[in-house]
Parts: sequence; structure tokens; C-alpha cells
Amino acid sequence: MTSTRLRDFNLAIGDLPTGKWNAITDVDGVKVGHATLNFGEGALIPGKGPVRTGVTVILPHGDNLFRSKVPAAVHAINGTGKATGFEEVRELGRIEAPIALTNTLNVGLVADALVEYSIRQTPEIGIHTGSVNVVVGETNDMELNDLQGRHVHAEHVWSAIEQASGGRVVEGCVGAGMGTTCFGWKGGIGTSSRVLPEKYGGYTVGALVQSNYGESANLVICGTPVGKYLQAPPLRPVHGSIMMVLATDAPMTALQLKRLCVRAGVGLARTGSIYGHSSGDFVIAFSTGYRIEHQPSSLTVERTLIQDKPALMNQFFQAVADSVEEAIVNSMFQAQTVVGRDGNTRHRLPVEEVVYLIECADRARLAARPRTD
Amino acid sequence: MTSTRLRDFNLAIGDLPTGKWNAITDVDGVKVGHATLNFGEGALIPGKGPVRTGVTVILPHGDNLFRSKVPAAVHAINGTGKATGFEEVRELGRIEAPIALTNTLNVGLVADALVEYSIRQTPEIGIHTGSVNVVVGETNDMELNDLQGRHVHAEHVWSAIEQASGGRVVEGCVGAGMGTTCFGWKGGIGTSSRVLPEKYGGYTVGALVQSNYGESANLVICGTPVGKYLQAPPLRPVHGSIMMVLATDAPMTALQLKRLCVRAGVGLARTGSIYGHSSGDFVIAFSTGYRIEHQPSSLTVERTLIQDKPALMNQFFQAVADSVEEAIVNSMFQAQTVVGRDGNTRHRLPVEEVVYLIECADRARLAARPRTD
Amino acid sequence: MTSTRLRDFNLAIGDLPTGKWNAITDVDGVKVGHATLNFGEGALIPGKGPVRTGVTVILPHGDNLFRSKVPAAVHAINGTGKATGFEEVRELGRIEAPIALTNTLNVGLVADALVEYSIRQTPEIGIHTGSVNVVVGETNDMELNDLQGRHVHAEHVWSAIEQASGGRVVEGCVGAGMGTTCFGWKGGIGTSSRVLPEKYGGYTVGALVQSNYGESANLVICGTPVGKYLQAPPLRPVHGSIMMVLATDAPMTALQLKRLCVRAGVGLARTGSIYGHSSGDFVIAFSTGYRIEHQPSSLTVERTLIQDKPALMNQFFQAVADSVEEAIVNSMFQAQTVVGRDGNTRHRLPVEEVVYLIECADRARLAARPRTD
Amino acid sequence: MTSTRLRDFNLAIGDLPTGKWNAITDVDGVKVGHATLNFGEGALIPGKGPVRTGVTVILPHGDNLFRSKVPAAVHAINGTGKATGFEEVRELGRIEAPIALTNTLNVGLVADALVEYSIRQTPEIGIHTGSVNVVVGETNDMELNDLQGRHVHAEHVWSAIEQASGGRVVEGCVGAGMGTTCFGWKGGIGTSSRVLPEKYGGYTVGALVQSNYGESANLVICGTPVGKYLQAPPLRPVHGSIMMVLATDAPMTALQLKRLCVRAGVGLARTGSIYGHSSGDFVIAFSTGYRIEHQPSSLTVERTLIQDKPALMNQFFQAVADSVEEAIVNSMFQAQTVVGRDGNTRHRLPVEEVVYLIECADRARLAARPRTD
Repeated sequence: MTSTRLRDFNLAIGDLPTGKWNAITDVDGVKVGHATLNFGEGALIPGKGPVRTGVTVILPHGDNLFRSKVPAAVHAINGTGKATGFEEVRELGRIEAPIALTNTLNVGLVADALVEYSIRQTPEIGIHTGSVNVVVGETNDMELNDLQGRHVHAEHVWSAIEQASGGRVVEGCVGAGMGTTCFGWKGGIGTSSRVLPEKYGGYTVGALVQSNYGESANLVICGTPVGKYLQAPPLRPVHGSIMMVLATDAPMTALQLKRLCVRAGVGLARTGSIYGHSSGDFVIAFSTGYRIEHQPSSLTVERTLIQDKPALMNQFFQAVADSVEEAIVNSMFQAQTVVGRDGNTRHRLPVEEVVYLIECADRARLAARPRTD
Repeated sequence: MTSTRLRDFNLAIGDLPTGKWNAITDVDGVKVGHATLNFGEGALIPGKGPVRTGVTVILPHGDNLFRSKVPAAVHAINGTGKATGFEEVRELGRIEAPIALTNTLNVGLVADALVEYSIRQTPEIGIHTGSVNVVVGETNDMELNDLQGRHVHAEHVWSAIEQASGGRVVEGCVGAGMGTTCFGWKGGIGTSSRVLPEKYGGYTVGALVQSNYGESANLVICGTPVGKYLQAPPLRPVHGSIMMVLATDAPMTALQLKRLCVRAGVGLARTGSIYGHSSGDFVIAFSTGYRIEHQPSSLTVERTLIQDKPALMNQFFQAVADSVEEAIVNSMFQAQTVVGRDGNTRHRLPVEEVVYLIECADRARLAARPRTD
Repeated sequence: MTSTRLRDFNLAIGDLPTGKWNAITDVDGVKVGHATLNFGEGALIPGKGPVRTGVTVILPHGDNLFRSKVPAAVHAINGTGKATGFEEVRELGRIEAPIALTNTLNVGLVADALVEYSIRQTPEIGIHTGSVNVVVGETNDMELNDLQGRHVHAEHVWSAIEQASGGRVVEGCVGAGMGTTCFGWKGGIGTSSRVLPEKYGGYTVGALVQSNYGESANLVICGTPVGKYLQAPPLRPVHGSIMMVLATDAPMTALQLKRLCVRAGVGLARTGSIYGHSSGDFVIAFSTGYRIEHQPSSLTVERTLIQDKPALMNQFFQAVADSVEEAIVNSMFQAQTVVGRDGNTRHRLPVEEVVYLIECADRARLAARPRTD
Repeated sequence: MTSTRLRDFNLAIGDLPTGKWNAITDVDGVKVGHATLNFGEGALIPGKGPVRTGVTVILPHGDNLFRSKVPAAVHAINGTGKATGFEEVRELGRIEAPIALTNTLNVGLVADALVEYSIRQTPEIGIHTGSVNVVVGETNDMELNDLQGRHVHAEHVWSAIEQASGGRVVEGCVGAGMGTTCFGWKGGIGTSSRVLPEKYGGYTVGALVQSNYGESANLVICGTPVGKYLQAPPLRPVHGSIMMVLATDAPMTALQLKRLCVRAGVGLARTGSIYGHSSGDFVIAFSTGYRIEHQPSSLTVERTLIQDKPALMNQFFQAVADSVEEAIVNSMFQAQTVVGRDGNTRHRLPVEEVVYLIECADRARLAARPRTD
């Protein structure tokens, strides 16, 4: 498949450089895996299909996550959604299982699959040690998918985890993004990353999104209100949401990670979102900068932690805002037209036209007055 | 089964009268149902048994909850738990499915069963209308139960819903309380209610708890530190939690219901809880005082709402604190000794001894100085 | 003074119409008043001057606010600030005194002046009835102003309240906006409003901001990244913040008003903010749609309330995002160059150049592909 | 003055030992200071007197707090109050000025006095560096005090800071506790501390409270419902609140300190509080375990931090609950009868009778069945 990411068109968001893959996997150790369900055609038969859905998993590292937890935070920009596992992350500031994204009615089954996975990894769960907290996010892909069917089964979750890897992340109509809609066009999975300057420690921030929100006329890409100029797609989504996952190798406290989460809302707003009423807009952030033992062997621990230097924190905030925005754009740029249940069609964003509109605006401004500093 | 509730011993908590059943079902229309799983003996074989668990459901009313939602709030006193469905309740202040309580690793499957139930009730979910938010709470019954087995299946959830009724609520080792432990003794399901004086509208407040927390030496009943005097039970729970569900017929906003939730922590603290580190202490509150249409037919709605009169609100707060405390006591008083996995035993609280200790203290104080006002 | 608001240049943000004044005062009954302190020149003598500061007050209505409170909510997008009075608004969902904005070190004195004002209005405060909760927001104008001097005195607060009126709102270098800086240019007070279509009730949403944040290169106006093209101003603010006040005549609960607050972050993000580390980004929202008696005479009250219809709520959210964004632009467009302490200068945004850049971009896009739907 | 603290009567709360002073000052470096205003008699003349109020300050350490901040958290159990400075503590997790407690209408002036104090300590505030966040708590002492008069002036705040010291803390009718009422009796300032066992690091937790809440019939001391037996005092407070300040030398994150705050609600509930509607129940916690530079010189810092070991955290939670409860009891035990405005009288709790009631209950229980383990 040809890559049609934003940067393939010599466009970019913000001034910070990306990591090698321009993906959440640029944060060392982070793995992403998908299981995509794409079968059946024609009229919806609830419980049968057509099926356009899937699951995407993000692993903070490749070791046993229950025994080696990572610091984390969650944030509900708009809590109209069914995400699970957030209470304990808020209380203890840590994640102890792979993060999964899926369709909205599948959260229970996917959570259960993560419980089973965790038990296999750590057989003492529920016997000699306590419970396991699993985090699952979701969006509603019912416009294309037999949502009632809850077609994502445990095997799909486990397969996504097994196949999870670092490096290039497949984007677009894949995993939990198979059936999503974004600003009336086909949405999906997208990712991006930023690397801070060496003077700010050279840390990496990565974002991965499952995009499924927005009104077509509101779409803004690279600051250009393309939704105003594009021929509107024939259908309008009304039940959209977005899940945003952030990773960083900077050793941050849960409170600092929470502050990163809030800035995901900046990237989201820049694309034309108004955090719509029915759009569950959630953020999950974790750090790979240190690990938290399941059963600490000592009362205290030595940690190297990021300090709240304003200039440094602003670098992180900029990195979050820019990488979330670009991850959203990539989720649309990399998607393809999908025909789903009842023949419902979500068209590929006319990427070339979008790029042309952006370039025109840029050229016009440059002609008007180049900046000289 | 003989009733051994607190009031069967001529003891009570607080001065407010109870409703007819001294149960959450005193709030008109509220139904409670259980499915209890109690089979197998001997050594734990993960996935097989022994099984000491179950599910308890609370229905705010007997109609279609998705189409006629109720105002609601949630609160995490201590968020160390796996409760699900809280995000949307916080955002929109409403509940739209039966509330279920179960064991900690069963949350995913029970949530999925509630999704299936909701679809059956409202077939347009996920087809012509959006998703459904289900609320599930949990505690960890692994000391007695084959927790890994996740033995609560969809059929149990549906059965509990079908059998749910008003009137007397079965307490103790039943439903989600089958395998729980409280202050080292057998815990379980307990309930209680309070009725406000007529001058305060005669509203009812009901509480139902799933008790599974606490260190034996800390137990306090009716203000008497019985844990200091009782022979300590041989085992100590370390992974306990408590779920507290509140109902009222007073027409309250979500913000007011949130304030009720906070006062559940008063009743909990009075029993000797310190909101322990591993104890997920959660509260869910709803009102039957008005309903919220799934798809409102008009822009505005007329509502009769409780006003924030200090004396009135304090009546509600007192009712919450007292009914939660008494529900916890009932959950222990009504429980029986249970032998679970690996022969682990949770003994029945020595109720008669507890009552004697309380009476001694009361008599001594009365002898010392009767109050004359 | 000639008006140089955004709409004077035939530009606009979003499609919703404004109210008559395009100001927060379009919400019927809302009054705004300023006291501007602008005296002294040259080197800073702490405690003496130069003084470039002031206070801006917003009155939800012209009656006794303590006896007739209004429903309200607050939200900290970034809590790095000294705003006061937020705890009780969160708990009870209401405001009972004029809202004041001022400089960051003056919050205590301005709060005290509001207490004194409230006592004069309602002499039983602190004698026969309880305390009064006053809400004050702030930003840091130290780049131009003798901040340590805390020059805003009680008389200024009272004068601002007395002079408060409906109708046109003076913007720019006035009141609490006298000494602020926004994206390196002169900031100040700005306002805007939106009116919902009749089919959505014709409700009005108004916003007023005190703008004092942002890095010059990040400035975006009407979607055009003008900060990339303008000659950067010589100084960079580092301690900026923004206070955003929202008003509506729609009868909303505190929970709904909280959701409006969150969408102020959309308007803010669109201008180029990343919710910077040191920028206290706060939102206060109130409704004039009903009033809350100080001492309710009955247990319950009848209210007409907005329902959570998705399409309706999205209209409100769009109105908030657009009016906040435009209020920010107006705060800069209406400001003038100010020379402050130590000769520090904040230049007027080169408005004509900004307008030209926006028009160029628009024209280029229109030429490229006019939208045909 | 003779000490009449709880432990002077051979009574205690909980099993953990206290520090040397059984005071918040047992946390090394913490200082407490009071300024007490107690003058005038007879009928209230608003603005003149009688005056029964004051200010109490808590200094986390004796160095420059702005340059060497301490990690901190705040928590509103019931947010019906006027506490200030909480937003920034929530966002950044740190305190940078002395904490002050005072009467409810004096918060603005006391906050301003802390600003002035901070400027004197650190003259670059508001000139070369940003603003300063000051934290002030309050309760309403209007039953005894000329509240409208706001008699606490800057000099009193500065005097309290200057005289602040470690070691023994004066309790009862002193500082911010001069005019308060608790369960109908005279309340005031109280303090207590706990030391963890060596195996848990030997850390110290201290609490200081300003008690001004509760209905007389609800009072519980050492688990004995003395309010049920004591002759009720003639007046009932209706506008009460409580401020609770926690200190520890354990090096905790802001998130961990937040969890300590929540457990203050346990100690409060044990005394008979229902977190009454009008009672602003607030908690502020800080750690002296490490310091946070105002302008960090490096990107990262090495910290030794407490780990979330359940048994360790439970020790801290127990210490918080017990020390808050005992601090409240001390605040009443150490208070004296005060006659205030309009001859309003708050009587000293009949301590000897209370002690007798507690001893009777204990003796009766011991006689009934001594614990044998």
C-alpha cells in the first residue's frame, strides 16, 4: 500500500521534528498491533454482518506489564463514552495491561480478553495477588459495521497483542479504525511523533488516535478550513468519538502526564472539533521513563523525574498538540473508501484536493508578506 | 431463613425512621435481583472452582431504562477498582441500564451481558441510535472464589434482572456478596433505608452495599469498637473493596446526587474503614424523581427539583450516612459462614456477642448520665 | 475611538449570527464595567508605578445577586493561576456576587472589595446569614505594570460595578485588560456573542475574555497562522494567562454549564494557544435563565431546563467556541500600543496586515475550488 | 494554662504512637504561629466588634518557601467554602507560601498579606519572576465575632508568621480558632501527630485543624456518642466548616498527598460530622520530604519517593484518620468558654463528663469480654 501520510506531501504540523517512524512507536519499546475484521456485504443482519471493525492494542513495553507497570494518566475531555479502566488509573497513576481500542459495544468482551491475557502472563492474578486493571477505549462504528454483533472476540485481541511490534504503524482502515468516520469521510487509526531538541533532553512524544468524530463542514487541516471548500460527503456521522493515546519516554509523574492529556484537546480542536455532545473524547497517556513494580520490595524508590520548567513543559505540550493533530490527519489521509452495512459508504478524503487547498493558502500568504525573522 | 438484621436486635443507627422494608426497594419502583453461584469444594482449580460468587442488579425502575433514563452520579472515594461506565455518568448525569455488581474479574463479561440485555430491550441500539452505557461495580472475592474462572455468565445477569423485584431484599451471602469478606468476617449484600420527616417532604433514601473490606481489629458497629474485643478471625483480607448504591425518590440534579455520594463515605468511615489502599470504595446514586427521555422531543423540559435548603440537604446527608452504615452492618449480620476454595473459611460475625458488647456500652453510658433534654 | 473589531473588516468566525452588540451583554440583563488605571511613566518603582492595570466586572443581572443567585460553573483548563471563589461554585453550582477580573497580585484586595460590596447590598451577611462567595479571576500584567503595587483598590472595584451597564462593551486596553499581552502584542478585554437559530430556541451565548497569553509565532486568526508571517514583536511574554467568562440566557444546570466551559478551550486552541505551562486558563460560565433564592422558601422549585438534545447542545458548543475565539481576536484588534514600566512596550497588533493575510488565504482557496453545496 | 488534651486523661485514638509534641510540628521543620484577636464586649456594632477571631499560619519549613516549594495537594470534601489558592496546587502539586487559616470574610485581606509577605521575602516576585500562589482556608466565626469587620489585618498575619515556631502548639481559643464553634461547644485549633513503625520508615504524619462544624447531638468522641448524653448547649451553629492541614516528612508525590487528604474525611466522620451542607470541609496536605526549586536548574531531578505498598499506604491512611480525629478532639478539649458578640456564649465542652462517659463505655465492654489475642 502506498503511503499517503501528511508528510508524503511535504506538509507538516508545527516545527518540532518527528521521530524515525513519525509514530507512537518512536517512543522506545512501545508496540502497536491490530486485528482487523472486514467481511460481509449488503444489508445489515444484526449479529451476522457486514463487519467493519477491529481492535488496536498499544503496549507500553514488551515485558510483563502487570509486574512492571508504567506511570499513566487519563482524561475525559468529553466523557460521553464507554471507556473502561479509568478509575484506577486516576487513583494510582499507572497502567498494568495492554491498552486496547475497539468499537463501543465491544468494550466488555475486549476487557475480558485483556483479563484473560493478563492471567496467562501472570498466573497468580486472582489467586495469590489481586485483580488486574485493564484499559479499553472505544468509538462507535455503527454506520459501517454490525455493531450489535460485537464481532471482536478474545482471539482477535490476543492476536493483535501477539503481532504488536515497534517500527512502522499501519494506519487508516485497520484495527479499531476499520469502521470509523471522521468529518464525514473515512476515518481510522493514525499516529505521529515529535522529538524535543537536545537542550530539552531529546525526549520523544508519540500519539495514536482512533478518529471517529466531526461535522464535515468543520474540517480543518494544517490550519486550512478544507471542510468549507470540499464537496460535502453525502452522509453525516452523529455518534462520533475519538480516542487519543499518548506515549513519552520522559520520566513524568502521573500529574505531569495528566497535563499532557489536556493538551491533546488542542490538537483535536485545531482539526475542527467542538468536542461534540455525543463525542466521547478521551486521552490516555503513559511514560516509559520508569517502571513501577507490582509488589515494591522497598518502602522508597529512587526516580529521575522531569522538573516543571516552563520552557520544557511547553515543549512537551507543543509536541502533544502537534502530534495529536498530525495523527488525526494521518488517520484520514491513510484511510480508503469503505462500503459497509446497508451499502453505507465512507469515502476517502480527497487528499490531493486537500493538499492543493493548503498549498494555495500558504502560497498566497507567503506572497503577501514573507516573514523575515 | 431467620432474619438477623440489626433491627431484629432492637438496635438502630441514627434517629430517622426506615422505610417499610428498610431496604433500597423502599424507594418506589426500585428492584433488586441476585444470581448466586455456590458450587464446588476443596482445592482451587482455576477455571473450575470452587465457585463462591454471583451478580446483584439494581433497577431504578421497571420500564425501559434506555428510553427512560434516570438522573445519576458516581463517586470514587478510593478509585482502586475496576468499576466501569462511570465516565458517561459523570459527563451526562444519567444512568440508562440496570446497575450490576459482581466480582472484579467478571466486570467485562457482566458489562457485555448488560449490553446484550439493553439491545434486546431496545433493538435500535447500535443500528438507528447510539451506544448504551452500562454501569458495573465489583469487589474481589478471590479468598473464597475461583476468581480467574469468571463464572458469572450472561445468563446469570439476565436471570438476576428477570427475578428482580421490589419489597424485601435478600441479604448476606447472595448474588455479588456470595464470596466477600468484611473485617475478616463473612461480608455480603446489605441494604437499609431512611424516610425523611414530612416537613422535609417525606422523601426516601435507600442504600445497598456489597461489603468486602476492612481489617478485623478496626470493626465498629453502632459506635462500639467490637473489633477490639472480638476474637479475631484467623484470616485477614487484603484486597477488599466496597460498592455502595444509593437511591432516592427526591428529584435531584446530578450535582446534588454527587453530593449524596460523598456522604456514603461517612457511613463507611463509621464502621472502621480507613478507605484502605487496595479498597476500591465507589458510590453510585440515582433518583427516581424524574426521568430523562433518550431522545427529548422538545428543547426544554419542566422539572420539579429539590432546592439547596441547608436543613433539607442535611436530612438527606444524614439519611445517606445512616443507611449506608446500617446496610453494611446488615450485610454482615445476615451473612453465614462460608467455606470456599482451598478450604478457606469466612466465619459468620458472632452477632450475639456483638449485640451484647453494644448493649453493655450503651447501658454503662446511660447509667453514667442519662440525657435530660 | 474608532472600532476596529474583527467584523469591522468584514471578517467573522463561524456561521452563527451575533447578538445586537456582539458582546456578552447580548445576554439580557448582563452588565459589564471597567475601572482602568493608567498613570506614571518610566522606570519601575515598586509600589509607585508606572501603573497599567485595572479591574473588569461582569454582573449576571442588575438585582441583588446574593439574594438572587445564578446557576454557574467553573473550569480550569490549566490551573496555573490564582483565581478565587471556585470551590463553592463547583460544590453548589451558583454565583452570588459580581465576577471580577484583575491583575494576579490584586486578587485578595479585589475579593475583599467584593465582600464589602456584598455586605452593603445585603447587610445581614455575616450577621444573620452566612458568608458570601466572591469569584475573582486574574492574569499577570507585570511586563507593563507595577504589579507589586496592587494598585486596584476597593474604590476601583465599586466604581466598575456602579458604572457597569448593558449594551456596547468597551474593549482593548481597558479594565483588567489595560496591561496585558497576547502573543507578544497588546492584549486586553474582548467580547463576542452568538445567537442560536429559532429552531434551537434562539438562545444567546456571550463571551468576555481577558487575554494575556501565547507565543508570537503561534498566533492564528481566522484560521490563518499570522504569527508565522508577521514581524515578531521584540518582547515575549512568559507569564501569560487567560480568563474566559461565558453567559447564556438558556436555562441550564450547573453540569451543562460546566460542559460549556470545556468548549471555551476549543476557541482558545484555535488562536494558537497550547495551554502553556504558566498560563492559567480558566473559564467561568453562568446562566440568566433562572435564579436561585438565597433562602429557598419551599423544598422544591419548578424549573424549565434545557434538555441534552445532541443537536441543541452542539449549537451551544459551537457558539461557545466561536464567541470565545472572536472575543480573543477582538481583545487584540481593539487594543492600542501601550508603553509601560521601564519603557516596556506592547505594540498594537498590525491589524490591517493581519486582515490582508487572512483575505489572501481566503481568496486563494476560493480561487482554487469554490464550494458548491 | 493547664493542658487538657485528650491524652492528659489517659485516652487516645488508635494504636500508632504520637510524635514528641503530638502536634503537626512533629514533622521536622514545620512551624505554627497564631495571632489572636479578642477584644470588645456586648452588642454587635458591625465594623467595631466585639472581636473574637484571628489567624493561624502553618509554615512547611523555615526557609524561603517561594524559592523552595514543597509538594502538596488539596481536597474539598465539601466545597461550600471560600478557601483560596487551590487551583494552582491542584495543577502543579506544590505550595510556595505559608498556609493561613482565618475567618471567612477575611480571606481576601489575609491572602493579600501573604502576597506582601512573599514579596518581602522574594523581591523579584512580580518584577523578574511570576506571581505567587497563596493558600488561605477559613471558617465562619460570626456567632461570636464581628465578622463583617474583617479585623484580621496584614500586621496580624505577619506577626503570626514571625512568631511561628516548632515544638508545642497552642490550641483551643487561639488564632483562627478564637471564635469558632464545634458541635455547639467552643471549638478552636487542635493538633495531633502519629509516627509510623520503624519497619514502615518511621515517618511522621501531623494534623492541625480549625474546628467549626457539627450538630451537638451528633458529637462522638473516642467512639462514644457523647452528644447523645451531654446536656445540649443552648445554641446551635448552622454555618460551620472545618479546615484540616496535614504534614508529613514522607517524600510523596502530589497524587499520594491527595490520597492522604481523602482520609482526613475518615477522622472527621468519626467525630459525628455528616459533611453538612453549609460546612466547607477542606484538606491541605504537604510533604517536607523534598523541595521543589522555583526555577529548576536542570531538566530532571533525582527524588527518593514513597512506593505504593499497600501495607505502607495503609499506615499513612491510619495515621491521617487518627491524627485528624484527635486534633479535632484536642481543639475542643483545649478550648475555654467564650462570650462574644451580643453576649453569645460558646461553652467549654464538659471535658470531665465526656471522659467519664468514655471510660464507662470502655469498662463495660472490657468487663463483658476482654479480647484475648
